[in-house]
Amino acid sequence: MVKVAVLGYGTIGKGVVTVLQTNADSIEKKAGERIEVTKILDLREFPGDPNEDKVVHDYELIKNDSDIQVVVECMGGLEPAYTFVKTALLQGRSVATSNKELVAKHGAELIAIAREKTSNFLFEASVGGGIPIIRPLISSLSADVIEEIAGILNGTTNYMLTRMEEEGADFDEVLKEAQAKGYAELHPEADIEGWDACRKIAILTSLAYERQVDFEDIPTEGITKISAEDFLYARKLGMAIKLIGQSYEKGGKVYARVAPMLIAGEHPLAPVRDVFNAVYVHGNMVDDLMFYGRGAGSLPTASAVAADVVDAVKHLGKNVKINWNPDKLILGDSGQSERRFFVRLAGDTPEEKIQDIFGQVDYISIEEIREKAFVTGIMKEEEFEEAVKDLDVINRIRMH
Amino acid sequence: MVKVAVLGYGTIGKGVVTVLQTNADSIEKKAGERIEVTKILDLREFPGDPNEDKVVHDYELIKNDSDIQVVVECMGGLEPAYTFVKTALLQGRSVATSNKELVAKHGAELIAIAREKTSNFLFEASVGGGIPIIRPLISSLSADVIEEIAGILNGTTNYMLTRMEEEGADFDEVLKEAQAKGYAELHPEADIEGWDACRKIAILTSLAYERQVDFEDIPTEGITKISAEDFLYARKLGMAIKLIGQSYEKGGKVYARVAPMLIAGEHPLAPVRDVFNAVYVHGNMVDDLMFYGRGAGSLPTASAVAADVVDAVKHLGKNVKINWNPDKLILGDSGQSERRFFVRLAGDTPEEKIQDIFGQVDYISIEEIREKAFVTGIMKEEEFEEAVKDLDVINRIRMH
Repeated sequence: MVKVAVLGYGTIGKGVVTVLQTNADSIEKKAGERIEVTKILDLREFPGDPNEDKVVHDYELIKNDSDIQVVVECMGGLEPAYTFVKTALLQGRSVATSNKELVAKHGAELIAIAREKTSNFLFEASVGGGIPIIRPLISSLSADVIEEIAGILNGTTNYMLTRMEEEGADFDEVLKEAQAKGYAELHPEADIEGWDACRKIAILTSLAYERQVDFEDIPTEGITKISAEDFLYARKLGMAIKLIGQSYEKGGKVYARVAPMLIAGEHPLAPVRDVFNAVYVHGNMVDDLMFYGRGAGSLPTASAVAADVVDAVKHLGKNVKINWNPDKLILGDSGQSERRFFVRLAGDTPEEKIQDIFGQVDYISIEEIREKAFVTGIMKEEEFEEAVKDLDVINRIRMH
Repeated sequence: MVKVAVLGYGTIGKGVVTVLQTNADSIEKKAGERIEVTKILDLREFPGDPNEDKVVHDYELIKNDSDIQVVVECMGGLEPAYTFVKTALLQGRSVATSNKELVAKHGAELIAIAREKTSNFLFEASVGGGIPIIRPLISSLSADVIEEIAGILNGTTNYMLTRMEEEGADFDEVLKEAQAKGYAELHPEADIEGWDACRKIAILTSLAYERQVDFEDIPTEGITKISAEDFLYARKLGMAIKLIGQSYEKGGKVYARVAPMLIAGEHPLAPVRDVFNAVYVHGNMVDDLMFYGRGAGSLPTASAVAADVVDAVKHLGKNVKINWNPDKLILGDSGQSERRFFVRLAGDTPEEKIQDIFGQVDYISIEEIREKAFVTGIMKEEEFEEAVKDLDVINRIRMH
């Protein structure tokens, strides 16, 4: 019997307890041991909850309970999660977490402590919810050099973009709808401004290149400027618009960015709809891969956390090596990264002026929209910014 | 330094050597040891090949080379692959293989030997080529009870079905085209009759339910009866036609089948095109997952084999447990499995007769095709067979 403490009894924490209890028998077979949640840390009371007697309000009670071998952290945020997790690891316990902020900020340090203490720090659920992506990146793609990662990493924004595409609705309208359905929060900035996706691509990039990628270094743009008209153009182009967390290696440098991007209709990310997430990976040998599933939600995310608990139990007293060096990876200059851009200019922009700047372009015309819209050739970000600085830009979207 | 022998220097074997040599530096970092291929077994000579000096013709030379710690098997077929792999495992070596026939037939036994000898028998590449599916199924989905697996497991047939859909071409035509392009073999039965997919779904089902599933027990139907007209109906239904290896659990029984199936347009398997493979998994907690990538080809498949080699090197002297019990899993009676069927009957079939048998149905009409086509309600396989036995059936396709 292995005893587990769960920190935080909110959506994910409750899900983890449910998964471990509901599938207890099959989990026991796979882990080789019975797994039991014996303490749950939360400041609240849960009268009537089947696990109410396990709830404690003081972390010291968990810290001092020497029977506990695995700690699950589902509190979210940096503190007190960081202090509690670090304490548990320093005690020689293994930790499984769903906390992307914690992992993005302190992952390298916590991995190093686990290694030192011959325990494990596991965080499959921190990216892509229930989708297995962390473990495949570490152990299934070990023979490849990763050339690109591009992920739909945030379910809220993917739901909103899908509604905009399907209903021709505008941003504000679908945000209200998403909030009403509980898919978007009252303060939705972390999702719609891309901050959530930014932490997740920082984690994936750190693992792919085995060095610390600071999420603060990743240029991040959300979906607030995407409009119903953009989807009319996207349809005309046979493309989808997705909020993409992307990193890629070129000429020995790693570039990373979060931004809404136009994705070719044939690309495997294009049909990923609603709250689903997907991570596309291109390796120099394996070529294209994609991992698809529910990127959020209580039970899917809890499934990934619980699988980490099983892994921790299977490896009690053994450390499974994760290469994530605390040395900072200096990202390539984002102004030097190259791509095509889709641009919408005011309808009265003279075509000669456009040709002078961008060369010959094919205009994309939509009935009733009087604009000059086109796709540029491949340009550096800073070249593009320079090119459009005196133009009346209605919107511009990067092409994946 | 860990020394590796590769058995079979064909498409996959050459790929494995290429991957291990091309990415040697990054692989060394991940494995913690330099990995070197020192012997290659093949009956042929390879004059001018950069590795020609490593080629040997006699397995005894590999067996007796005590420096070799990991054996890679890429010969295909049951013998002599089985004898060589078993010998290597009994010597305490770890083995990585891409051989689906070997794994489907002898997986449970070879896993048991590796466990006994504290080595590892790894076979990620035996299903889905480069797609990580075996390892996620074993270690990432350990907290879930698997309710369904449905895979596009054969690239040749998916390429052919995609061409038929896109070009309106008929089966014989696309088979010739696929053969000319090297995507289909001169004797294409293993692909087009579904035998290859059958072995792969047998492996996945064995791992999901941790018991031996004999591929001979799985009802298997290929794509030879799929015609251009079927795709006209599929389009009308907003669906795709895919060769699916499926298994699912219902009422404590596991059912498995390989057959062409109509897949809803919104299902993640529907947009999987050309030679790509994808495995959809539904867990009771994680809900929908899909793993997508190249299911064949030298380097993608070799990437998976080489990742297994890295895993074997990381775990030298340790066995990573795989639950695949040699006790046979008795599959549920396939006649009792339930689903809807799409049926095309001769145009002169009286509607009253159809209504007597199937109840009220909505006919799907295609201009210029004079048939009675419709989708049945949910029926047992044997009920359906009984219902149509006196009817003039042009074709019938199972609905996923």
